[in-house]
Amino acid sequence: MVTGKETTFKNAVDRIACNYACQKDMPIYCGEMKLPDRNEIVEILNEVEKILFPAYFGVNSLKGMTAEEFIEKTLISIYYQLKTQLELAFSLCKCTGVKNVFEPEELDKICDEFINELPSLQEMLLKDVTANFEGDPAASSKSEIVLSYPGFYAIFVYRIAHELYKRKVLFVPRMMTEYAHGKTGIDINPGAEIGEYFFIDHGTGIVIGETTNIGNNVKIYQGVTLGALSPRKGQSLSGVKRHPTVEDNVTIYSNTSVLGGDTVIGENSVLGGNLFITSSVEKNSYVSMKAPELIIRTDE
Amino acid sequence: MVTGKETTFKNAVDRIACNYACQKDMPIYCGEMKLPDRNEIVEILNEVEKILFPAYFGVNSLKGMTAEEFIEKTLISIYYQLKTQLELAFSLCKCTGVKNVFEPEELDKICDEFINELPSLQEMLLKDVTANFEGDPAASSKSEIVLSYPGFYAIFVYRIAHELYKRKVLFVPRMMTEYAHGKTGIDINPGAEIGEYFFIDHGTGIVIGETTNIGNNVKIYQGVTLGALSPRKGQSLSGVKRHPTVEDNVTIYSNTSVLGGDTVIGENSVLGGNLFITSSVEKNSYVSMKAPELIIRTDE
Amino acid sequence: MVTGKETTFKNAVDRIACNYACQKDMPIYCGEMKLPDRNEIVEILNEVEKILFPAYFGVNSLKGMTAEEFIEKTLISIYYQLKTQLELAFSLCKCTGVKNVFEPEELDKICDEFINELPSLQEMLLKDVTANFEGDPAASSKSEIVLSYPGFYAIFVYRIAHELYKRKVLFVPRMMTEYAHGKTGIDINPGAEIGEYFFIDHGTGIVIGETTNIGNNVKIYQGVTLGALSPRKGQSLSGVKRHPTVEDNVTIYSNTSVLGGDTVIGENSVLGGNLFITSSVEKNSYVSMKAPELIIRTDE
Repeated sequence: MVTGKETTFKNAVDRIACNYACQKDMPIYCGEMKLPDRNEIVEILNEVEKILFPAYFGVNSLKGMTAEEFIEKTLISIYYQLKTQLELAFSLCKCTGVKNVFEPEELDKICDEFINELPSLQEMLLKDVTANFEGDPAASSKSEIVLSYPGFYAIFVYRIAHELYKRKVLFVPRMMTEYAHGKTGIDINPGAEIGEYFFIDHGTGIVIGETTNIGNNVKIYQGVTLGALSPRKGQSLSGVKRHPTVEDNVTIYSNTSVLGGDTVIGENSVLGGNLFITSSVEKNSYVSMKAPELIIRTDE
Repeated sequence: MVTGKETTFKNAVDRIACNYACQKDMPIYCGEMKLPDRNEIVEILNEVEKILFPAYFGVNSLKGMTAEEFIEKTLISIYYQLKTQLELAFSLCKCTGVKNVFEPEELDKICDEFINELPSLQEMLLKDVTANFEGDPAASSKSEIVLSYPGFYAIFVYRIAHELYKRKVLFVPRMMTEYAHGKTGIDINPGAEIGEYFFIDHGTGIVIGETTNIGNNVKIYQGVTLGALSPRKGQSLSGVKRHPTVEDNVTIYSNTSVLGGDTVIGENSVLGGNLFITSSVEKNSYVSMKAPELIIRTDE
Repeated sequence: MVTGKETTFKNAVDRIACNYACQKDMPIYCGEMKLPDRNEIVEILNEVEKILFPAYFGVNSLKGMTAEEFIEKTLISIYYQLKTQLELAFSLCKCTGVKNVFEPEELDKICDEFINELPSLQEMLLKDVTANFEGDPAASSKSEIVLSYPGFYAIFVYRIAHELYKRKVLFVPRMMTEYAHGKTGIDINPGAEIGEYFFIDHGTGIVIGETTNIGNNVKIYQGVTLGALSPRKGQSLSGVKRHPTVEDNVTIYSNTSVLGGDTVIGENSVLGGNLFITSSVEKNSYVSMKAPELIIRTDE
């Protein structure tokens, strides 16, 4: 205790202990339970980045090993780190009464499938690098994109997290994408389906909701929301398709919102900036708005 | 020095030393003075997070202690860390000539009151968790919100910082909320008044100004600004109510701006997305905009 | 290998090794090559912050040294750290076939010039502090701005990166500004030209493109884009002026977009919030929009 403050401290201890004990619908104090660990999950993302782009993120690990040795060693590390976090997520599900969506013996299978998917993920990401380079006149090379573009980083993390989301892993996928959201300002829900050659420029403020479908060769800019029309209904909408579908070769410029589960942006369309779109757009369309009249007062 | 560069270095040293000496209205070099430390302030936030939600952030600290022992130990640590930072903030005030808003003997009292408030803050935050869970169909459980939602993290940090702001502590509250702003893209000024059951979804780009008042059960989405109408007047507006009032049970959808100190959004109202509102809205209103006409050109 | 998973691992190793070998237009695996290091580049920014504002960021380095000794020691450290990263950027250019824009002997000269510019950068940044303080009624002192304002941090990093961009250094400037972008949500391309007394408030979501020109005494708020009109043309626009010009004493309020390389916002003009501007505005103008008609339905 702090001298002269005994009463304050005693009261606070008692009330906080009481809060721990009283909370019935979520654990807040629990000596036994262990939860998925944010730092470990970031470490998994770092290891995957390292194996997919070793020249950029793994250079110190390459010394004295053949490529094959480096890959094998890193894969094994990813496998066990992932398995540990999935076990923790699973134990949290049990502890919190969340619907038990997978059996313990399935954990092995999920990790196995994840390793199996990594080469395809790498090929997918190399296509994303190409899309980001070709779309951006400010990019000096593909290397610059891998080294520094937040849009590419957000896509990378989303593609990893989506593999786990598809396999019904709880907690971990969202912890991954929220880490990327924190670093980039780009919020891609791991449930979204996104095709190949995806390009994000600048990116801050982008929101892509859980049930969004995005085709191939799509480009989106900062501040774009692909969102729900009536999120206010809350939990009653869980599992319902409530975010839009964006078909192949669509470009959506900055700060445009496209809302609603029935809204489809047809292929090859271009949506200009600052639009608010709540119904479908036919394929091959170019959409802009009749800009609100400006009021310009000039003093001389 | 670097060989062959002596002149460059000598000139740079002299000019920088001269800049240190010449700056009169703020300290930039000062061997004696110590300032509040950003890392220490983050550490206080981490300790508070740990004591309020130990299952999520403090699990390694729980080993071999009763709940009461853990709480007491952590409270003492928070008390002393906070006191050190408040002393530094106080000494910076003196050094920079900022109006001395509290006496040294008050520091103890502020830390005492802060400890005393923590159980209520915990109860308040548990209500925020409930609001965030019920409002979001993508949330699988309350645990997921505590583990990964940036909106909840921003609210948590704001509520801590606001306790210090109310007690006229300088520097530290804003350093706290700017840390959260950096992590989440959500900028809540510690001076804002915010009621219970507050829900933020996605959150990137939200700005809530210093003199904003927000009631209970309010929901806001990414990109919402609760701001001032004429910030251009700068320091002359210091202390004046210049941000809006949002009453109970209001929902404000993404990218809407509500501006002005006289603007009141009446209770139970819903503001749609992308609005620009500079005057009051009556209670029980549903506000949307006549969307600007779209210009759609379709090629076949 | 992981027992029972030998085939999965063997296949993944082979396919990833094959991806390394097949990628022709960018290096992804390269035992010899070393790239600019993100952590080292952050360390350079930290050292520069320390030398320019030692009372805020370097206090532990000041002990037992005169100001001159501290400055000299820190300058030498910056010089060598920068030179190492420039050498790595240069070797990456060679390795990736990016047009070789500077000769090895020029590296020394660039580092020399950078050291020589630091005192002027410091004076420039002190003017930015003044602009940020005078523009913001919520700021309690200039010290608070240096300690906690993300807008000021983004300006600081941009000004450092711009010195390198001007000297045609590849990779490093963008890695610097993307680090600041990640921390602040403010995306200033290092190629932009920005005058003195620059003020950014809140800042999240701001995008300032590579060929933007900004005069003196300009203020911009969160969500402002100074962007290109047809970024879709991608690499074919590399090097072309495609972002706007903003003259002296202009204020641009939140979430307004100004687009296009021929767009000039004349001096002393004020652009209100939420505008979408694609053509020039005369000097001394005050621009707002005829806000879209609101549809208000009130239930009693």
